[in-house]
Amino acid sequence: YDKDAYEGNEVAGVVTGLAWTSVGGDILFIEASLSPGKGKMTLTGNLGDVMKESAVIAMAYIRAHAQELEIDHRVFDQWDLHIHVPAGATPKDGPSAGITMLTALTSAFTQRQVKQHLAMTGEITLRGKVLPVGGIKEKILAAKRANIKEVILCKSNQKDILEIKADYIKDMTFHYVSNMMDVVKLALLPVKVKNALDISYREEGNKQKQD
Amino acid sequence: YDKDAYEGNEVAGVVTGLAWTSVGGDILFIEASLSPGKGKMTLTGNLGDVMKESAVIAMAYIRAHAQELEIDHRVFDQWDLHIHVPAGATPKDGPSAGITMLTALTSAFTQRQVKQHLAMTGEITLRGKVLPVGGIKEKILAAKRANIKEVILCKSNQKDILEIKADYIKDMTFHYVSNMMDVVKLALLPVKVKNALDISYREEGNKQKQD
Amino acid sequence: YDKDAYEGNEVAGVVTGLAWTSVGGDILFIEASLSPGKGKMTLTGNLGDVMKESAVIAMAYIRAHAQELEIDHRVFDQWDLHIHVPAGATPKDGPSAGITMLTALTSAFTQRQVKQHLAMTGEITLRGKVLPVGGIKEKILAAKRANIKEVILCKSNQKDILEIKADYIKDMTFHYVSNMMDVVKLALLPVKVKNALDISYREEGNKQKQD
Amino acid sequence: YDKDAYEGNEVAGVVTGLAWTSVGGDILFIEASLSPGKGKMTLTGNLGDVMKESAVIAMAYIRAHAQELEIDHRVFDQWDLHIHVPAGATPKDGPSAGITMLTALTSAFTQRQVKQHLAMTGEITLRGKVLPVGGIKEKILAAKRANIKEVILCKSNQKDILEIKADYIKDMTFHYVSNMMDVVKLALLPVKVKNALDISYREEGNKQKQD
Amino acid sequence: YDKDAYEGNEVAGVVTGLAWTSVGGDILFIEASLSPGKGKMTLTGNLGDVMKESAVIAMAYIRAHAQELEIDHRVFDQWDLHIHVPAGATPKDGPSAGITMLTALTSAFTQRQVKQHLAMTGEITLRGKVLPVGGIKEKILAAKRANIKEVILCKSNQKDILEIKADYIKDMTFHYVSNMMDVVKLALLPVKVKNALDISYREEGNKQKQD
Amino acid sequence: YDKDAYEGNEVAGVVTGLAWTSVGGDILFIEASLSPGKGKMTLTGNLGDVMKESAVIAMAYIRAHAQELEIDHRVFDQWDLHIHVPAGATPKDGPSAGITMLTALTSAFTQRQVKQHLAMTGEITLRGKVLPVGGIKEKILAAKRANIKEVILCKSNQKDILEIKADYIKDMTFHYVSNMMDVVKLALLPVKVKNALDISYREEGNKQKQD
Ligand SMILES: [Ca+2]
Ligand SMILES: [Ca+2]
Ligand SMILES: [Ca+2]
Ligand SMILES: [Ca+2]
Ligand SMILES: [Ca+2]
Ligand SMILES: [Ca+2]
Ligand SMILES: [Ca+2]
Ligand SMILES: [Ca+2]
Ligand SMILES: [Ca+2]
Ligand SMILES: [Ca+2]
Ligand SMILES: [Ca+2]
Ligand SMILES: [Ca+2]
Repeated sequence: YDKDAYEGNEVAGVVTGLAWTSVGGDILFIEASLSPGKGKMTLTGNLGDVMKESAVIAMAYIRAHAQELEIDHRVFDQWDLHIHVPAGATPKDGPSAGITMLTALTSAFTQRQVKQHLAMTGEITLRGKVLPVGGIKEKILAAKRANIKEVILCKSNQKDILEIKADYIKDMTFHYVSNMMDVVKLALLPVKVKNALDISYREEGNKQKQD
Repeated sequence: YDKDAYEGNEVAGVVTGLAWTSVGGDILFIEASLSPGKGKMTLTGNLGDVMKESAVIAMAYIRAHAQELEIDHRVFDQWDLHIHVPAGATPKDGPSAGITMLTALTSAFTQRQVKQHLAMTGEITLRGKVLPVGGIKEKILAAKRANIKEVILCKSNQKDILEIKADYIKDMTFHYVSNMMDVVKLALLPVKVKNALDISYREEGNKQKQD
Repeated sequence: YDKDAYEGNEVAGVVTGLAWTSVGGDILFIEASLSPGKGKMTLTGNLGDVMKESAVIAMAYIRAHAQELEIDHRVFDQWDLHIHVPAGATPKDGPSAGITMLTALTSAFTQRQVKQHLAMTGEITLRGKVLPVGGIKEKILAAKRANIKEVILCKSNQKDILEIKADYIKDMTFHYVSNMMDVVKLALLPVKVKNALDISYREEGNKQKQD
Repeated sequence: YDKDAYEGNEVAGVVTGLAWTSVGGDILFIEASLSPGKGKMTLTGNLGDVMKESAVIAMAYIRAHAQELEIDHRVFDQWDLHIHVPAGATPKDGPSAGITMLTALTSAFTQRQVKQHLAMTGEITLRGKVLPVGGIKEKILAAKRANIKEVILCKSNQKDILEIKADYIKDMTFHYVSNMMDVVKLALLPVKVKNALDISYREEGNKQKQD
Repeated sequence: YDKDAYEGNEVAGVVTGLAWTSVGGDILFIEASLSPGKGKMTLTGNLGDVMKESAVIAMAYIRAHAQELEIDHRVFDQWDLHIHVPAGATPKDGPSAGITMLTALTSAFTQRQVKQHLAMTGEITLRGKVLPVGGIKEKILAAKRANIKEVILCKSNQKDILEIKADYIKDMTFHYVSNMMDVVKLALLPVKVKNALDISYREEGNKQKQD
Repeated sequence: YDKDAYEGNEVAGVVTGLAWTSVGGDILFIEASLSPGKGKMTLTGNLGDVMKESAVIAMAYIRAHAQELEIDHRVFDQWDLHIHVPAGATPKDGPSAGITMLTALTSAFTQRQVKQHLAMTGEITLRGKVLPVGGIKEKILAAKRANIKEVILCKSNQKDILEIKADYIKDMTFHYVSNMMDVVKLALLPVKVKNALDISYREEGNKQKQD
């Protein structure tokens, strides 16, 4: 039972990524959650150093592009961010969850809903470029099996998709990007999730907000 | 004498879990205790990194769902939380104590009594899903031997129960869940323990509270 | 000269434990000492992680049961606690010094005198249970050789005592406990040591106290 | 696709360096980014200790020469600095990115545009000297392949350039330096990038600046 | 030239100890130095964990017995303490420098002069006991060679001295102690060193003290 | 090109030391630099623990002897100190750079010019003694090759100099010291460097100083 299926988009901050391990491709979930706090970031899920760096880069990019993402930069100091990647028993590493992290964090801070049946894979950089990653064929087979309909990839990974038998993926849509802002535009809907958290800035700090 | 027996539910914060080791299944106790403080979390019991992460995820989930759990979120900064898992000489790891941690911490912060003769096993996630775990057969045999009457498991582990000889477990009740909130609803009684701590929020801070 | 003898009970915070090593049993001393401070805990004596955890659990238990132990909980933030276990050249580990730690710390914070010619061995938990430990026979032989007259043990270790030749231990008294509070009641006398420190709470903080 | 090409100079803080690995030379990008903060430095990109030290030295040099670089030294405490070196999966180490780090950080704090089609390699010191580095031939071949037109090098590395077939590099310009300030003068244009951040000092701190 | 000779007692805080290594005995110097600060302790000299613990225990004992040692306990928070043990290239460990550390720190905080031509070796405990150490014969030969006239040892080490040919040590004096306070009384003269630091408590803190 | 030559004395805080490695002797540069701050010390240059300890000891000595060195002790809390030892790719360790560190730090805090064509090698202690070091012959050959005219050494290293062919070193001057204050007196000129930093104490803190 360790091959996962797509699980819906009701919760802000949860985005579907694609993983490639020695036993083949699989989907994975990046879970980002906010609680009243002071800007601390917590990472769980048995993550290696490179994968942890992806979260740090994603957060740095969001901080530097807060205005463009329509996030009041002052809220970063009023919430603690927790990022988890199930399952806990599986060690995970590598940069390929970068755009998934970016999307999950942006969704958490905007409470915007993630597009349905969407998955993604790609490395992020600090200057906003999306970099290509490996294992594309295995990841796409896993995505199809998990009921994913659309996939976001780096433009440089297009050639890997072209090597897959066209008939097999004829009912899937692929988006090729080279800019991180394009990922967010493709992945997040303009509407907020139901029961969205109120992340707007509070003059008196977060304490008062929840009386 | 290292096969433990069920020990009652008089104390808030103590919940029975199920463990699976190379020498078979056993029950274990998650002990959560609060003392006046500032929101620090301490973990003891020879725990590995993945098991420590379960505690961090449980706490993050409780913080994010404080209202639903009827906990004033402001008390998190007025108490220190200590989680211990006896026995100290045994190294422990893995994510399967997740729902047991969640229940123990919720009981500590609400002082609600834990249901009698209940044990549980299952991984937790940040978005509130319960994930399946391994070693179910051995864990259930240990639960029966330890006088456990009810067990909470992930829905995906139901197939593992069906593989156990029905006659052997005919006097046990199994609850299959996929949502973490359901674990709390099943495991915690509406009443508080006797001599419950007063965890309500104090305007002047915790110091004054105990004069 | 590394087999130690009992050394009296003049000093608060010093309690005799029982150790079991590859070269046989021995007694050991848990030394707990307070100095004006802010609640910091320092551990020395070449201690392994599990033994350090015993000190943390003992302190958590004392904090949570301060009222029952007749300690004003506010003094915990006005003193620094140092715990040392001689001798420095010997690495030490394991949970069996738990009740000895508990007794030493309680004696330090109450300045109550420890019962004469008493030793003890047993693991502690956060919920107040005493757990059994190994090496009982070797420990008891070492206790007798060191002039110990009374020993506190976990109830589950009674069977280990029954295996020792009765004649050999006929002049020793054994106390079997399952609750940590019972250890304190058995081990600490109601009187304070001579020249006891004044640990009562000071309004203005500890600084003024010692002008 | 892991041999990179030159990518333009639109963004302040991004500078092209030259790397030398077991599989030959390559260009790399040092990405430096500022966000409102308190002077914290974050380093990502799978960097070894010596490469991290380069960033620390570059920052120390910039702090000590702020006036000469026309940076108000008070802004260092009003911004957090993040330095990333893609790609995340590749471990990187050594001191040869020093002058590239220096240029990237200076560009970030001044928002001055980096000269077009420029790359560089050289170690930095605290007293302002540029030191020679290895792998020059491989680095230059990679630079040419990546469409680099000008290269900054340590004066002591001139002999390495003279060993390369002159015809091959006839359309490239080489700048030999021994002083770190000369690198900045050669590499950064007097103009700021489009949409430059406003890094000037704010009396009331950075918070107010972005209302 | 790595066999050291006695070097006088002009400086407060410098005390001669005895070491025992694979190449025989030697004397060593514990150097303790105070500078205006906030109570920080710094340890240098390539020290192992057990030797570092000796310094921590010595400091804890001095804090707890400040009155008896005629030190105003408030000065501990107004000075930083640095302890160094030359030579830097030699790794050092073990508890046997304990009483030497205790004497050096007490001399630093009282500025009392150390007795001439004195060396010492012995482990310390938190409750004030001096414990025996090994390598006595080699240490005493080294002390004699280094022009030491008096040696302080644990009472339990007396038997080791009796095994040394009496004629060889006939011009040396040995002091056997079991209590740490006796070490200080034997080792420190009532007079202060020339040009002693003024360690008395300052109302306004240490800053003003040195205007 | 990794055998360095003497580089002048224009910059305060830069002092020439002597190193001895498996490939022979060499000179090295200790670079100390101050920037407005709060007393933090940063060490770079691929330094081992013993070499880092030399910097800590040098700083402790300077703090304790500030008056004698004519440094206002209050400035230590108004500047951050960075010490770098090029080249970054070479791991360095050992105590022999001690007096070079001491001289570099004193020059940085006084802005006094270092004597021309001077190098040095020797271990430092906390009580002010200079200790002998190894590899003297190789270090002196390297010093001569690098155009060094004067060398400061420990008195105990004089015998190593006498073993070098006199004719070879006839145009070099050797200073033998046993006291650390003598190193500073020999190495630093009474005049400040050109464009010296103003390190004097500022009432309002360092912030105002650079408006
Ligand atoms: Ca999976
Ligand atoms: Ca992914
Ligand atoms: Ca068990
Ligand atoms: Ca469990
Ligand atoms: Ca012993
Ligand atoms: Ca014990
Ligand atoms: Ca590349
Ligand atoms: Ca480079
Ligand atoms: Ca020596
Ligand atoms: Ca000694
Ligand atoms: Ca060199
Ligand atoms: Ca040197």
